[in-house]
Amino acid sequence: MPTFDPELDLSIERLIEATPETIWRCWHEPDLFKRWFTPPPVEVAEVDNDLQAGGRAFVVMKMPDGKTIPYEGCFVLAEPHKRLVYTDALGPGFRPGAKPFMTADVHLLPQEGGTLYKVHVMHASPGGRAEHEAMGFHEGWTTTIAQLDDLAQSLE
Amino acid sequence: MPTFDPELDLSIERLIEATPETIWRCWHEPDLFKRWFTPPPVEVAEVDNDLQAGGRAFVVMKMPDGKTIPYEGCFVLAEPHKRLVYTDALGPGFRPGAKPFMTADVHLLPQEGGTLYKVHVMHASPGGRAEHEAMGFHEGWTTTIAQLDDLAQSLE
Repeated sequence: MPTFDPELDLSIERLIEATPETIWRCWHEPDLFKRWFTPPPVEVAEVDNDLQAGGRAFVVMKMPDGKTIPYEGCFVLAEPHKRLVYTDALGPGFRPGAKPFMTADVHLLPQEGGTLYKVHVMHASPGGRAEHEAMGFHEGWTTTIAQLDDLAQSLE
Repeated sequence: MPTFDPELDLSIERLIEATPETIWRCWHEPDLFKRWFTPPPVEVAEVDNDLQAGGRAFVVMKMPDGKTIPYEGCFVLAEPHKRLVYTDALGPGFRPGAKPFMTADVHLLPQEGGTLYKVHVMHASPGGRAEHEAMGFHEGWTTTIAQLDDLAQSLE
């Protein structure tokens, strides 16, 4: 596991009251994924996630004004029910991307009472980290992970 | 396996008269790696390759004038004796890199008479591909893969 670099990285974690298997489903199944991945009023308009090394990570976010923002990256590691790493430094098939911004390393650690959902986000530069933080990283990810928790609990 | 894009990609292949296991050793063992990875008079001054997903790919090349050129990237896929993918779009631990140039996808396909060594190099832009070709991609990689072939044969 890469070390945390305070100049380049952000992180967030939450004890989710569900099993790693259920949380994995919320990543894997498009209908479930759409229900938690964005903080309202932003919506997921489209998703095409292929959870395997080299698989496409593709999400189109829809803003309240109707504007859409596509995100395309690549899953570089997918250990079912354990760990998921995706990045926009690469596209599908590990093809280099034009503008690397971040890699997210998501760990699902089974614990008493559920699963510790631990995300380590690494940026290409200190400026990228600062930009992400200013964009509302903590608020946004706190909201979406709480949604994931609610959704996962409702499925068990 | 990603499709070949003629605007962004380069490729090269050779039937190496050795087993995939021996070729893997030539990647894995630093003393062997140093003997084939660069075309003379360029030398490998230092190598630190960690052949696993997220592992460091690090090589310092030494030019005839003594100047050294470091290369740091990340192995994103390592299937022993089968496939090796590395990129400079990421650093060790999948950390995004500052200037993505290429991803190399190396396949070792066992065949009658040895192993088909097949490399698919993907670039971030058509300009990157053109630059790599002008730097002597075909000559350089042809030489180094021939060196790999000689070395691997000598080990069997």
